[in-house]
Formats: sequence, structure tokens, C-alpha cells
Amino acid sequence: MPVAPKRIIKEIRSLRHKKFRQEKQAYFAEGIAIVLSALENQAPVQYVIYSPELLRSETAYEAISEARARIPCYETSAQAFMSISGRDNPVGIGAVVGYHDISPDSPSLLAYSRFVALDNVKNPGNLGTVIRTADCFGFGVLICGESTDQYHPECIRACMGALYTVPVARFDTAGNLRQWCHKHGVSIVTTSSKARDDITQISGYPRPLAVLLGSEATGLSHDVLQLGELQVRIPIYGASTSLNLAVAAGIIMYDVVSKPEFKS
Amino acid sequence: MPVAPKRIIKEIRSLRHKKFRQEKQAYFAEGIAIVLSALENQAPVQYVIYSPELLRSETAYEAISEARARIPCYETSAQAFMSISGRDNPVGIGAVVGYHDISPDSPSLLAYSRFVALDNVKNPGNLGTVIRTADCFGFGVLICGESTDQYHPECIRACMGALYTVPVARFDTAGNLRQWCHKHGVSIVTTSSKARDDITQISGYPRPLAVLLGSEATGLSHDVLQLGELQVRIPIYGASTSLNLAVAAGIIMYDVVSKPEFKS
Repeated sequence: MPVAPKRIIKEIRSLRHKKFRQEKQAYFAEGIAIVLSALENQAPVQYVIYSPELLRSETAYEAISEARARIPCYETSAQAFMSISGRDNPVGIGAVVGYHDISPDSPSLLAYSRFVALDNVKNPGNLGTVIRTADCFGFGVLICGESTDQYHPECIRACMGALYTVPVARFDTAGNLRQWCHKHGVSIVTTSSKARDDITQISGYPRPLAVLLGSEATGLSHDVLQLGELQVRIPIYGASTSLNLAVAAGIIMYDVVSKPEFKS
Repeated sequence: MPVAPKRIIKEIRSLRHKKFRQEKQAYFAEGIAIVLSALENQAPVQYVIYSPELLRSETAYEAISEARARIPCYETSAQAFMSISGRDNPVGIGAVVGYHDISPDSPSLLAYSRFVALDNVKNPGNLGTVIRTADCFGFGVLICGESTDQYHPECIRACMGALYTVPVARFDTAGNLRQWCHKHGVSIVTTSSKARDDITQISGYPRPLAVLLGSEATGLSHDVLQLGELQVRIPIYGASTSLNLAVAAGIIMYDVVSKPEFKS
């Protein structure tokens, strides 16, 4: 197996920065489950890099030996791998993957009838956790406004491979999202701690639907909240005034899948 | 206001490490909401430190001026504050707080009738998010086994101040937790992706109850799963095989508060 040249190590290090990710339209995905998911789901993997001194997974070696027929696979030392890793205890495998943005009109997105939409989400760990939960509950993901980058290392990590199984589409503004929903007959359900209706009192949800949540710090603006046919809040009983965004999104997705649906 | 002496800066830096936290039985809590919650809820704050160059919150200055009658409050430069901060964009206020472990038999814990229990939880961010959610839904928190430290900076951060409003008690083993539940008439509900009963099919939960979840990587062991009178799973419809631990805990706490209860 060829040893990774210095330029490869240097390139991977540079991909920590959004500027370089955008320039190269690529990012570094690290970890066994994540690399396996990228390979299995035909993500645009440019190359795989691994350290035999660190990597202990049989399944990962099988995936590498299958992948090497079509994708460059580089070996590297434990020391070099640790210099590119974003983790405290790297497992020793990663891949550089090209961006795989999808258009809001792509059939893979439109095959879904439930969506979770995030407006101005700032924390890449939250975004990744929402993508992972969306995969579990069968939702597509829509991001709008000044949201974080889904290719941020913390997002990739929190996704646990779901970035390769769930379609994620991006809109410049919540207004564009609304137009898209209107065009495709998708009802919007907005969520805010200030909303009128308590989700425990809701007997069912429309389908197709997009559940829209706002930023960690401020939630949805008054105007965006009004976009919802249903405007719902999760009841809070304690001293904390709000739930973590990814937890709130998880509770609402669960509520949608566990209650009856009506045609919207 | 006195300027923080070098030994204070040095002490705070050392508290990043669990070894020093345990030695001093104290930790550094950073951020406006967190420091305000510690002061309001009579946490054992040893001193407050802030940087006038960074801190922009009126509410924080009011809290400092009230606190200084009873607690040392130190000023420091932006540069020194950045050297102690664990954040990319520090807001400029923190406090060193003594450990506030509570006994499983303390009245503040026994005043609760719903608990979320975590066995072998490893990720401090997950633990903090569970504590925050427990506060929102009125649950006490029980930690058992080889679990992470609730005073880890990432846990403190994810708690968003809930560490000062929610009782958190610790048990050496799940067996000890079971004894405690038995003694206090608390039913155990165990959760695992391998459990028989789908939570969407459950019509209600016992009360008092403790919902027990396992580690991020492996969930509950077979033996611990058997401790539950109810053994439940959250249905998964997608390619991902599991939810994030804090999301799963949030969904189950929500399910408990939104469904009828029966006396256990």
C-alpha cells in the first residue's frame, strides 16, 4: 500500500479550516463507522488514509481492500495520523470526501415526505446530531439562513455516518424554504418556546410536513414562526428555559412519527 | 476590584485536568448563564473572575456587584482570561465552584418522583445535555458505573446552569442503584435498542420511576436491561442503528411526561 506523501498530510490538516474546505470542495471524515458509511453509500471519496499502527478493525481492513481497486488508499505512521486527527484517541482511519450538496429539487430529497428544517443553526455538533436523528426517524434535512457548515469536523463526527444516507439541502433564507414547501405541497410546522400549542396536546401532524426549528441562542424570529400552519412548543417544567436544539428536534421528530398523520 | 493574582490563573488552568479537580474538589464554570445560575442557586462558589475588556453583560455586572460582599471577585485582562477559557470566543466571566455531590438519601433528591439514570455514560457533553433536559422535564439525575465526571468542562457547558438546579447523585454500580430504587419504591424502566417493547406502544409509565440508559457505545448490558419492570426501545426506521444518548434520553423523558402515569 503506498505511503501517504507529505502533501496529502498537509492537505488533510488544511481541511480543518472552512476556507480550505470550500476551496477544495472537500472535507476529512474520520472514524470507522463514518468511513465505512461513506464507502458503502457511494459518497465521492477521493482517498482513504489509515495507520496500521492504530487501526484494529477487521471490518475496516476488508473495506480498505475492497476500496483500493477504485480509490487511492494510503498508509501512514501513527504519529502522522495523530497530527491530522481531530480526536483524542484516533482509531486510525479517515477519508477525504468531496462535497455532496444536493439541490432542493433532487429526487432523492423529494422521495421523503417528512423533513426537519433548521434556520440559523450555529453549532455543528447539533447539526450532526439532528442529521443522525433524522436518519433514525426517516426525515430529510433542510438547512436555511446563516447556518453552520455540514462538512465541519464536529458535524461529521456527530452524524455517525448518517451524512451519507440522509439528503441534506440548503436554502439561502427561510422565505426560500417556504416557497419550496408551497411548491411541493409540504406543510410547515414551526417550533418555539413562545408558540401557542403544546405538543403534548396535539393529536396528529400533517404529511408531507417540514418541522422548522430556530437557532440555539434565539430560536425562530417572530416572522418565521408565523410561517407555520401549526406552531408548537415543547412544555418545560423546570428552571431551565430551553432544551438543547438537537434534543428538541429529536422530541418533535419522535412526536411526529408516534402520532397519527392527516393529509395536508 | 482586586486583580487576579497569578496563582489564581494557574489554579484555574490546572482545573482542566480531572486529577486537579479531584485534589481541590473544585472546578471552573464559565459563561454568563452558568455563573448566574451558580450564584442564584447558592452553589459553593469560591470566587468569580471576569475580564472587563471582554464582559458585555449588564446582568453579569449586577450579579458581580451583589456577589462581592460575600465572595472574592477578581478582574483580569482579556489575554489572561483567554488563557484560562475553554471557549473559542470567551464571554469573559467564570467562577471556581466547589464540588457539590449529593448523597442518594438526601431530601433534595428524594423530593423527586421521576429520575433519569445513566450507566457508564462516557461523553461529558451528553451527560450535561441529559442534566439540562432533566431540569426541563422535572427529573432528578442518577449516574452509575464507570461514568464521566459531571464537573468536566464540557458537561458544565452543556448543562447551561442546570447543574445548580437539578440534583445529581452517584452510585458505584447499577446493582446499588437497584437497591436504592427498591428501598424508595421507585420502578425501573430500562431502555435499549434490543428491548422488546416499542415506546410508541406504551400507554403510560409507573411513578415513581427511574428511566435507565446505558453507554453511548454499547448500551445497557443484558443483565442490567433485566432490572427493568418495563424494558423499552425507541423505534428506528432508517440506516442509523442508534440515536445519540442525550437525544434518546430526551425522547424517553418527554414520553414519560406526556403519557398517563400509574402508581407503581
